Amino acid sequence: MMKEIYLDNQSNTKLDERVLEAMLPYLRENYGNPQSMYSLGARSKDAVDAARKAVAGLVGAAEEEVYFTSCGSESNNLALKGIASAYKQKGKHIVVSAIEHFSVLNSARRLEQEGFEVTQVPVDRSGTVLLEELKKAVRPDTILVSIQHANTEIGVIEPVEEIAAIAHEKGALFHTDAVCTAGTIPVDINKIGADLLTLSGSQFYGPKGAAVLVIKKGARVTPQMDGGIQENGRRAGTENVPAIVGLGKACEIASGEMKENAVSISRLRDRLINELPGRIKYIYLNGGTGNRLPGNVNFSIEFVEGEGMFLLLDARGIMVSSGSACASKALKMSHVLTGIGVDAAIGQGSILMSLSKYNNDADVDYVLENFPQVVDKLRGMSPLYAYFEKTGQRKPAGPGTDYEHEHDHCEP
Amino acid sequence: MMKEIYLDNQSNTKLDERVLEAMLPYLRENYGNPQSMYSLGARSKDAVDAARKAVAGLVGAAEEEVYFTSCGSESNNLALKGIASAYKQKGKHIVVSAIEHFSVLNSARRLEQEGFEVTQVPVDRSGTVLLEELKKAVRPDTILVSIQHANTEIGVIEPVEEIAAIAHEKGALFHTDAVCTAGTIPVDINKIGADLLTLSGSQFYGPKGAAVLVIKKGARVTPQMDGGIQENGRRAGTENVPAIVGLGKACEIASGEMKENAVSISRLRDRLINELPGRIKYIYLNGGTGNRLPGNVNFSIEFVEGEGMFLLLDARGIMVSSGSACASKALKMSHVLTGIGVDAAIGQGSILMSLSKYNNDADVDYVLENFPQVVDKLRGMSPLYAYFEKTGQRKPAGPGTDYEHEHDHCEP
Repeated sequence: MMKEIYLDNQSNTKLDERVLEAMLPYLRENYGNPQSMYSLGARSKDAVDAARKAVAGLVGAAEEEVYFTSCGSESNNLALKGIASAYKQKGKHIVVSAIEHFSVLNSARRLEQEGFEVTQVPVDRSGTVLLEELKKAVRPDTILVSIQHANTEIGVIEPVEEIAAIAHEKGALFHTDAVCTAGTIPVDINKIGADLLTLSGSQFYGPKGAAVLVIKKGARVTPQMDGGIQENGRRAGTENVPAIVGLGKACEIASGEMKENAVSISRLRDRLINELPGRIKYIYLNGGTGNRLPGNVNFSIEFVEGEGMFLLLDARGIMVSSGSACASKALKMSHVLTGIGVDAAIGQGSILMSLSKYNNDADVDYVLENFPQVVDKLRGMSPLYAYFEKTGQRKPAGPGTDYEHEHDHCEP
Repeated sequence: MMKEIYLDNQSNTKLDERVLEAMLPYLRENYGNPQSMYSLGARSKDAVDAARKAVAGLVGAAEEEVYFTSCGSESNNLALKGIASAYKQKGKHIVVSAIEHFSVLNSARRLEQEGFEVTQVPVDRSGTVLLEELKKAVRPDTILVSIQHANTEIGVIEPVEEIAAIAHEKGALFHTDAVCTAGTIPVDINKIGADLLTLSGSQFYGPKGAAVLVIKKGARVTPQMDGGIQENGRRAGTENVPAIVGLGKACEIASGEMKENAVSISRLRDRLINELPGRIKYIYLNGGTGNRLPGNVNFSIEFVEGEGMFLLLDARGIMVSSGSACASKALKMSHVLTGIGVDAAIGQGSILMSLSKYNNDADVDYVLENFPQVVDKLRGMSPLYAYFEKTGQRKPAGPGTDYEHEHDHCEP
């Protein structure tokens, strides 16, 4: 049987078996609606309350600041649109970074259509937000700064404490998308100084169907899902009890184990980052080596295309991503790589490998053995590489090298 | 051990064990993101496609007209707000009935705040929309008529074919919230003539976390969840594959079994509707006897309060609702009972019993034995009942009988 090595954990992680065990009673006998006051409903309500406590504990929030949603994208939509709607009398300016998740960038774009003004702050080569540019961008009419805690594609961890201080100095609220960090590395909303924080279990072995927007006391957020009185009137819809219970369990497990996991996953990451360049020529690391997510490895490799690498690696049982999960079908250079200034000709050949606690040294060995073979095979088929080998010159991009693909829905 | 009889199936149904079995592989080994092209992702994509086909088959839609959301409330929000945003150049008038679900009524209310005009069409004593009133309400600038296929509280099935025709005559689109009907009784979107239809597995043994908005070809709907390219760009967020698979399985099972279930559940319903009035005096059926959902029983009982009945029934293991799931904690007369003209003094004593395929004759026997005892006990404590017994007169409502409670978030 072929080896199967899953290295696309930024896209989704395997559910922890303990999480599933915690969920099963709520998928079977404990099916009561938590809004109902009979015993079966009360059991569900208690379970939701316990999960809320576990989530709050993971990020240092108060329980009543935890609002359950259906996914990280919904939380980000709620943060941007909910703040925009609640504070539009105060101002109509919002600041994001150029390398946010599409759910932030496209929510901001939607708000632009509705008369808000959005400033995208640039990042440096490592992906770190340029704080001087941020300072210039935030204005008296800025109501919200939304900058991710870490980037899913290149793994950069942003200086969110400084960003929060800059936002607050001008009276703006600060939202951080912590989907890549909460449950993976320590996150404390008060230490960060964020007013809103998005969290999802998808990257730390939790289930689909439940995510969170933490809203600090005092921040006003107009609901985006109208209906019943669930989540204190801020998110209608019957609570997805099994998923909420699962997310709570994932938070509880993460609180106890994430630090240890981060150490071992970082070691595997560093093996790939340090050893692949010795085996593949013309390979460039995207993102920096400091302040990097434990599981994130992102390389651009010259004279090959991401699609080809993706397919040949898949044929050898290595599952990776050629970009963000959402854009992976688009097969064009991601806005994140564009944002950090990667040259289009090189960015085309980018591969994102994201590790989890289920990976081990044998997986890394297998990648170190197979990845160079895949690159060699593809370069053997590349006229650009043949030209380079023959002349020592890189062929300039032109009509023959179609680096610009059509835009799609995802395009921020 | 105390008997446990669950009669709150409008609030939530127990997951069918076959649905859970179908979901489990996607909660365990098949965790791939359907947007990823490696085999593990393709397996998830195939499963989502199959579920889409099963949903489409249940309601006679085309597969590409099925859009997955996280819950029925989200589907209703998307229908109302998505149509409002897409057609606001054409007109800013929307028509709903007075007894819609809160996710419709409160979405409409939100749109009113944004400059839309909303007309609530009244219903008759059975809850049936008054078609003559509807005809008067729909105008050339009406962009959407949203009226439910059936009402969750009183079980009335609306004449949706006629409603669709009236909407279309004036060029308006027609959306129907079919959460109470799809999977319970036959629903065919084309026969109805609806342009949009909301469907959820919550009332036919499906899981939480996945619901559907069917959008017929040609109808434009502005996304309410911005981000990635999922659901053809109309609903961002990573697909909740296990829940979608479960919803598909629930649709498949319903397609084969719902007609038979409807017959046996209706028989139990009719036993309660016919036999309770012989055992409890001053009891009034809410909703009509024709065109009624198979599992719906709703009575108002004079000289008792819903809360008291709810608690004493719960103490005997009978789990019911004192109103819609969302309003059940509010303990005031629901907008639906108000809408059909129930007197406040009587409406206070309302109990909703909703049956499922898991109920049987023994359950009905137990209710028929215990419910009258509960009512007797409460009436024995009621000064209003004592006055009535003594004088034959109903005491007029006054400061001593506080029928009007405070409004809450749910209030439409």
